[in-house]
Amino acid sequence: MSPIRSATAVAHPNIALVKYWGKRDEDLILPFAGSLSLTLDVFPTTTTVTLTPQAPNDSVFIDGTPATGVALRRITAFLDLLRTRTGHQDRARVETHNTVPIGAGLASSAAGFAALALAASTAYDARLDAAGLSRLARRGSGSACRSIFGGFAQWHAASPDSPDPDHASYAEPLHDVHPGLNPALIAVLLQTTPKPISSSEAMHRTVATSPLYRSWLRSTREALPAMRTALTNGDLERVGTIAERNALGMHATMETALPPVRYRTPASLHLLDHIQVMRENGQQVWATMDAGPNIKVLCPAGQAPDVSAELAAISGSQTVIARPGPAATLTARCPR
Amino acid sequence: MSPIRSATAVAHPNIALVKYWGKRDEDLILPFAGSLSLTLDVFPTTTTVTLTPQAPNDSVFIDGTPATGVALRRITAFLDLLRTRTGHQDRARVETHNTVPIGAGLASSAAGFAALALAASTAYDARLDAAGLSRLARRGSGSACRSIFGGFAQWHAASPDSPDPDHASYAEPLHDVHPGLNPALIAVLLQTTPKPISSSEAMHRTVATSPLYRSWLRSTREALPAMRTALTNGDLERVGTIAERNALGMHATMETALPPVRYRTPASLHLLDHIQVMRENGQQVWATMDAGPNIKVLCPAGQAPDVSAELAAISGSQTVIARPGPAATLTARCPR
Repeated sequence: MSPIRSATAVAHPNIALVKYWGKRDEDLILPFAGSLSLTLDVFPTTTTVTLTPQAPNDSVFIDGTPATGVALRRITAFLDLLRTRTGHQDRARVETHNTVPIGAGLASSAAGFAALALAASTAYDARLDAAGLSRLARRGSGSACRSIFGGFAQWHAASPDSPDPDHASYAEPLHDVHPGLNPALIAVLLQTTPKPISSSEAMHRTVATSPLYRSWLRSTREALPAMRTALTNGDLERVGTIAERNALGMHATMETALPPVRYRTPASLHLLDHIQVMRENGQQVWATMDAGPNIKVLCPAGQAPDVSAELAAISGSQTVIARPGPAATLTARCPR
Repeated sequence: MSPIRSATAVAHPNIALVKYWGKRDEDLILPFAGSLSLTLDVFPTTTTVTLTPQAPNDSVFIDGTPATGVALRRITAFLDLLRTRTGHQDRARVETHNTVPIGAGLASSAAGFAALALAASTAYDARLDAAGLSRLARRGSGSACRSIFGGFAQWHAASPDSPDPDHASYAEPLHDVHPGLNPALIAVLLQTTPKPISSSEAMHRTVATSPLYRSWLRSTREALPAMRTALTNGDLERVGTIAERNALGMHATMETALPPVRYRTPASLHLLDHIQVMRENGQQVWATMDAGPNIKVLCPAGQAPDVSAELAAISGSQTVIARPGPAATLTARCPR
């Protein structure tokens, strides 16, 4: 039995600038292509995992409400990975607190599984290094592997020929980003109700039925080294251009699935059009979108207050300015 | 000198169910893939061509207004093709009357160049058969080659290996459509101002810069025989499904061009979403869109009045019910 019986971790959502969309292994959560993201300094998720040796089952509380069904099974399966790995049999109590709406394309599952990976691996005394934590988080929700790290991080796809693709697929922080790059990412909260179709189901349908998927995948693979170069050069215009195009391509691709997956709402499109107009007027703003109607706008940090105010006025929606955020962090463990 | 000095022709717009998007030869207007359309019975264009032996230049009047610039040059270049072919030197006066807004993605140029091809070839006594007329109309505006024919028509792409691709690329009417297929196409006129970017420029940009273009092209080539089979079988559900997917894919593809070409407005998206809901509620409705924000909805003719009323109520826009329309027709020639 480990001396540590309880641990609390905090993690932040990350927004991909080169997107993850499509699994080549749904069980191991291995992606078809690598991806690259920015971890934010807003919307943290705090998760406490406490081992409960007497309990017959895991219990999970999300924002105070007991989880059931798919959500519970997903977390139990995740804890099973750790139990198998460590030889522990104990069930656990998981309490998680989000500060962002769940299921609205605001990366709550990335922050959630990153925090859970860190808290649970500590509680179960799994002794993982950063790459190991990232691999573990990936098994909960693919993009969570990137929220283990602060700032910019890249998730490696792992070659299908790899002898151990599970081991080869994890995220790493980027250490060569130009120090002069000073970005902000403004989240425009157009709609914060849960999306009509889960990312997982949407990805699956896109891979299975979209005639455009292969082309988008190829373009994503090309976007990755281009994005790395743009980050190294501190060229925010290139970063934004590549990111916006990759995101629009991802949405275009899923909109051609059968039946179509359309996360973009009329309000999303209105704002996308306005962002294009802002850019034509000389402003440095680029859009990205995830599995939901909300829009995130990349801009130079110094211009974020003005851009944020304009986006709020145009959309009539709340905006939140985010900056590069920290790695997942352990905030408590007990007993020490 | 031909005894015929003036001719008037009427032609109707056609809406592609498998789209034409992208030229492999911009001068000859040869497409990368074949396409398939339905000529409508609404929005006719009437064009009169009168030879003017004394005039130094062609004169063109569109809805009573003298054409200048690009519009004039495009029609003069078209008439030059006929003059070269027939040996005629005479300039001409062209008067055209549209019943549809120009440049709003309502196929005004298809109807316009089909009517012009028929009227001008008659005035210049070019003695073309239907395929020849279709080839000629193609040189004015690609999709015009399909408006030479009534009902469903297919435009052949012509193989790049063809010894004479100009000759091999023309439209033909389909004679094997199931007689029980009884479609209506409802145009929802969300916006009738000219589009911000011409189809021609949008196509060019899509081909040159969209990473999804090749995949869409492949899917279009596969859609053609599938659409033929669906038409032969009278399977409107298949026809609609293939058409909607092909159109959404075309828009998805152009939205990933650099800079993006986005014809879909928030109102378009709102209506697309509603059409999906109608379908989930059991209604037989499928959407298609061309180079503009307007939406055309395919449905069984018997349901068109109800569907049209619902679409008008939802969009707050005018709707027009179209049925399969006639071939381009000569309505007057002088002297006989």
